[in-house]
Amino acid sequence: MSGNTFGTIFRITTWGESHGSAVGVVVDGCPAGMALAAEDIQKELDRRRPGQSRASTARQEADRVEILSGIFEGQTTGMPISLLVWNKDANSSAYDLLRDKPRPGHADYTYQMKYGLRDHRGGGRASARETVGRVAAGAVAKKLLATEDIEVVAYVTQLGGILAEIASSDLNELRVLAESNAVRCPDPAAAQRMLERLDSVRGEGDSLGGVVVIIAEGVPAGLGEPVFDKLDADLAKGLMSIGAVKAVEIGAGCECAGMRGSEMNDPLLWREGKVDFESNHAGGILGGISTGAPIVCTIAVKPTPSIALAQSTVDLARGEVAEIEIKGRHDPAIPPRIVPVAEAMVALVLADHLLRQRAARL
Amino acid sequence: MSGNTFGTIFRITTWGESHGSAVGVVVDGCPAGMALAAEDIQKELDRRRPGQSRASTARQEADRVEILSGIFEGQTTGMPISLLVWNKDANSSAYDLLRDKPRPGHADYTYQMKYGLRDHRGGGRASARETVGRVAAGAVAKKLLATEDIEVVAYVTQLGGILAEIASSDLNELRVLAESNAVRCPDPAAAQRMLERLDSVRGEGDSLGGVVVIIAEGVPAGLGEPVFDKLDADLAKGLMSIGAVKAVEIGAGCECAGMRGSEMNDPLLWREGKVDFESNHAGGILGGISTGAPIVCTIAVKPTPSIALAQSTVDLARGEVAEIEIKGRHDPAIPPRIVPVAEAMVALVLADHLLRQRAARL
Amino acid sequence: MSGNTFGTIFRITTWGESHGSAVGVVVDGCPAGMALAAEDIQKELDRRRPGQSRASTARQEADRVEILSGIFEGQTTGMPISLLVWNKDANSSAYDLLRDKPRPGHADYTYQMKYGLRDHRGGGRASARETVGRVAAGAVAKKLLATEDIEVVAYVTQLGGILAEIASSDLNELRVLAESNAVRCPDPAAAQRMLERLDSVRGEGDSLGGVVVIIAEGVPAGLGEPVFDKLDADLAKGLMSIGAVKAVEIGAGCECAGMRGSEMNDPLLWREGKVDFESNHAGGILGGISTGAPIVCTIAVKPTPSIALAQSTVDLARGEVAEIEIKGRHDPAIPPRIVPVAEAMVALVLADHLLRQRAARL
Amino acid sequence: MSGNTFGTIFRITTWGESHGSAVGVVVDGCPAGMALAAEDIQKELDRRRPGQSRASTARQEADRVEILSGIFEGQTTGMPISLLVWNKDANSSAYDLLRDKPRPGHADYTYQMKYGLRDHRGGGRASARETVGRVAAGAVAKKLLATEDIEVVAYVTQLGGILAEIASSDLNELRVLAESNAVRCPDPAAAQRMLERLDSVRGEGDSLGGVVVIIAEGVPAGLGEPVFDKLDADLAKGLMSIGAVKAVEIGAGCECAGMRGSEMNDPLLWREGKVDFESNHAGGILGGISTGAPIVCTIAVKPTPSIALAQSTVDLARGEVAEIEIKGRHDPAIPPRIVPVAEAMVALVLADHLLRQRAARL
Repeated sequence: MSGNTFGTIFRITTWGESHGSAVGVVVDGCPAGMALAAEDIQKELDRRRPGQSRASTARQEADRVEILSGIFEGQTTGMPISLLVWNKDANSSAYDLLRDKPRPGHADYTYQMKYGLRDHRGGGRASARETVGRVAAGAVAKKLLATEDIEVVAYVTQLGGILAEIASSDLNELRVLAESNAVRCPDPAAAQRMLERLDSVRGEGDSLGGVVVIIAEGVPAGLGEPVFDKLDADLAKGLMSIGAVKAVEIGAGCECAGMRGSEMNDPLLWREGKVDFESNHAGGILGGISTGAPIVCTIAVKPTPSIALAQSTVDLARGEVAEIEIKGRHDPAIPPRIVPVAEAMVALVLADHLLRQRAARL
Repeated sequence: MSGNTFGTIFRITTWGESHGSAVGVVVDGCPAGMALAAEDIQKELDRRRPGQSRASTARQEADRVEILSGIFEGQTTGMPISLLVWNKDANSSAYDLLRDKPRPGHADYTYQMKYGLRDHRGGGRASARETVGRVAAGAVAKKLLATEDIEVVAYVTQLGGILAEIASSDLNELRVLAESNAVRCPDPAAAQRMLERLDSVRGEGDSLGGVVVIIAEGVPAGLGEPVFDKLDADLAKGLMSIGAVKAVEIGAGCECAGMRGSEMNDPLLWREGKVDFESNHAGGILGGISTGAPIVCTIAVKPTPSIALAQSTVDLARGEVAEIEIKGRHDPAIPPRIVPVAEAMVALVLADHLLRQRAARL
Repeated sequence: MSGNTFGTIFRITTWGESHGSAVGVVVDGCPAGMALAAEDIQKELDRRRPGQSRASTARQEADRVEILSGIFEGQTTGMPISLLVWNKDANSSAYDLLRDKPRPGHADYTYQMKYGLRDHRGGGRASARETVGRVAAGAVAKKLLATEDIEVVAYVTQLGGILAEIASSDLNELRVLAESNAVRCPDPAAAQRMLERLDSVRGEGDSLGGVVVIIAEGVPAGLGEPVFDKLDADLAKGLMSIGAVKAVEIGAGCECAGMRGSEMNDPLLWREGKVDFESNHAGGILGGISTGAPIVCTIAVKPTPSIALAQSTVDLARGEVAEIEIKGRHDPAIPPRIVPVAEAMVALVLADHLLRQRAARL
Repeated sequence: MSGNTFGTIFRITTWGESHGSAVGVVVDGCPAGMALAAEDIQKELDRRRPGQSRASTARQEADRVEILSGIFEGQTTGMPISLLVWNKDANSSAYDLLRDKPRPGHADYTYQMKYGLRDHRGGGRASARETVGRVAAGAVAKKLLATEDIEVVAYVTQLGGILAEIASSDLNELRVLAESNAVRCPDPAAAQRMLERLDSVRGEGDSLGGVVVIIAEGVPAGLGEPVFDKLDADLAKGLMSIGAVKAVEIGAGCECAGMRGSEMNDPLLWREGKVDFESNHAGGILGGISTGAPIVCTIAVKPTPSIALAQSTVDLARGEVAEIEIKGRHDPAIPPRIVPVAEAMVALVLADHLLRQRAARL
């Protein structure tokens, strides 16, 4: 009820604070008989890990996952899968000044108001470190989706006002291109300019926002539930629940506001003996249920709120205005590192609805 | 589990098809001791009802709500509140041609693929008629919010490419202005142009999309739960679950992608002895928890998929391409009528989190 | 969250008070493509209806069910099934004296303490009238179970200290025998003595308790979830949630306390090429998961709390001790009428776990 | 959905197998601002730990709890509390013969049938080791209950047919008496005979069942929700979900079947200016809601299924009848060790309903 659980049948519960002992997740409801190894999870955590390039923070985290339960002789048993990653390299004293001075754009003030106290070290549970649990659980979901040939890929399409041109529609090619540079943008030229702008903004002590697109291919028609648990509604919740995301679009998204029905509607047609769609403005979802076309989600990510520039805030203990300069190691832009997190959330939603769908017909 | 329930403590379950006997909702978890009368609900259903103006369909629906349980001597008793509206004026034969020909942009095809059969009459459960339950339940939520001086108002800011200028920041004034014209736009001049464009588009057999903004004022700091059940995540789910919504933005929304941290962050300050914010790019939510500033959501609404123009589709029975012209009575644009529905969803999310918050501290 | 919803995938929400307009239930999650007609439900409601014999109250209730949604051309569509029964023949004035004087053994006092107010007419939501929703939903669950040849039968084995001898192990024969007398006891001789004792006790203004056994046959091995949502745990909850039930036993139940392991353990054996059990002390459940043997539950039902004899209570308005004599029409014993309710709850639990099981394996 | 989560607001998720790396639990929804230290949890785990006396197995488990999250400067923060206990001293090879031969009275066969595979080592997740998570979480619940002066105590009242005489009604005295002997029976003379019978039965390679009573004092009137989430229904589920429990009774329990209404009903009276009850056959619950009187639950516990005597079973690999002799270290009776587990489950139910009650009134 306190909001740390996500999903209905394929259901995860995450826990852990930035500067606590560890972070982790319990994955419940994964079907028995699925091959799963630590490396399946580790490779996704490695994609999430900071400290690899100039696009991300210098903090070193080994982030080795331990599987504590739910696997026997290399297979899932239907029991809850407990995944744990120890916290290391956490310097809590750097956060002492935050105890009474909430950082603008952060959860410091709202946690304090909600609970009357908070673990201020490194942002506590509101830290991006919390996404370790999402990514680890998402790796399990991806394994389940792979058994049905469903694949989820995300990449950066905009950063600091620089737009990528997406030349390919081949998901595998897009992933390879995106993973080949530090900003995870499949347009190499744009990626280069994004990196330069990041350098310049970091030098100014400021930060940039951006846009990430997430695509799922191979999703069969029929996933999603009517009315409230629509597939797009659950995707919107899952993606908006990632820190720093301020908008979620499905298919044509915001653009549909300016379109006419005759443009927006995707005509149905027969292709190779099956129903197909001439276009995909719907983003693969109609009436909240998947159409069989690729699921396309877009998220807008705000600029990193932790900036080195002096900002105005308040001192809650003294009841007065104060100034704050945030010294820690912070990514100057979140989109590159949000890519594996967004993939994880989409995978989790799809895995859950894949299992829910099993109960739809007699 | 089939997705017809929304909320955790303040929880609603809706039911009913467009051309079935009735539609309704069970509201569970409303605290005991709250005054509630049929007229509280009726006035919201009247706002939702079509047939009032040239901006909406000609279908006549009386839509009188009946309260079947949960009220005693004018007060809620803590028992489930069952609300029912009988269906009338439904001409099912007009939909016979839809049995095998899914309408582009509609849920016809996806329901058929999910369930192997469907009630095709009037769109069945995927019809906008389903929103009667949302609006009725939302009226109960609004009553609960009013006891804490929380108010939710929505209005149209864009229709068919015409942008409104929002001159006021007074919520009450905005509502009065919006409710005074058929497109529910608080900019009277823009509203006039929107209506003209609607007339022209209707004549062409086509339809328009638009944008709706929803604002909640009076929300105390502290609502929302960490990680997954963030207030913005639940708002995104609730709003995206409304048919025709393709994007949900919180605060600065999509714009944040192009902003710098120093622009986006809302500085904290002291105003009249309390913490306040210099700006509200966050849309009243940080770390998924309300800040005390107004909650601001924006949704993009696609153009009505039911258009009179001939469209290409398939005949599922014959396995061939077919043409479809949709004859029924349909709004040429959804945003004006989605306004009370969007308010209802925001009210439901806030009512739920208001009650959840009671368990946050010892 | 307010407790009016039961089940996870096959999920019901009931509503309604004894002297309100109507009572009803929304059945969500029933798979699409199942034949369902009003008479399927009506026949179970008719079994529940009072006024048929000297074993039950003289109150006349037609209790005609209306299906308001979820069915199209005789089949379930996967949409919520809304079922409604109008209340009739309710004489609320007979309950005026209960407003301030809680009846001993009833929920009057506890509802008042919980909510600060209550609908005292006929017991409000705490009335046995509430079971209309359970029985109606249970009829839908039974239809689903029948598609897998699972059958649920209950009968009275004890009433007012008179024990039945159960001579048959044929479920169909037991049902026919039980339904052929007013106390629903499959031992005709015991049934005769039970009826005589009921007459005598009614004459004294008092009431009797009893015992009901519920058996489910055809349940495949594998239903139930580890740890908390064990099949027996959910059965215990479902059965204990019926008013007047004070004990739930599975298989050998209370007797197991006096047994040795070598007696209690049911040896496994091969019978006709399949695993079978030599005995069934486990009641068809091991480790919370069905074994394939019949599920056997036993419930103890307290004597009807509404008795004509003068009882001591308090006057909450005056803050003093008071006397109460309950005049209404009340069954002198609950077990005969609880039989269809208990069957319904067991059917609901099994239907839910039947669907949950679909997600257990890859 | 896979059943490893319990509770709605105060909600726990347990994980771990007997011979896996560790067992643990995530406690979500505990209010912020509550003092909590590892020793609060350790003292309950120590009560659960085997290897202390001749009434329990010789297996040595240190069972040191680690708090991995949710605590800051000695207080709960409202974040999930992750508790972990490493597994030690597990000799898996002793279980090799169980791979194909399900033990009678155990979950071996049903897990195999449900999932198609299982971790057979030490019973896997179906082992009593799973209760570490329950007891650890229950300790947190007890801390919460203590802030409202609610206390939960359990003890053995019957073992192997020997009945205790309960001379005291003072909860504290009962606990001290019960905890002073190895069978946790507050009647010292009966305890002595129970121990003797245990010794004798152990020598025979057999085992005994028994009865445990759980009492909660200080529970205010008003806890529990109408209809399905009744307090007694949730207690029944929680207690029946403990392995080896085959019956749950509330108050008079099974005895009520033989009582008359005039005996069973607890008359209300005024005592020291408050409503009180002359008797407590209801066990502190009416209409599913607490009355303010002590909550009294009784559970029947089956004899330990793991016995040294030769038993008949099947060899699933060979498809033939087989014999099994279970060699491991097993308690000859479960009731003494189930005492802290049963207390934990009652505490978890009460903590959850205590928080749910906060939303009952305006």
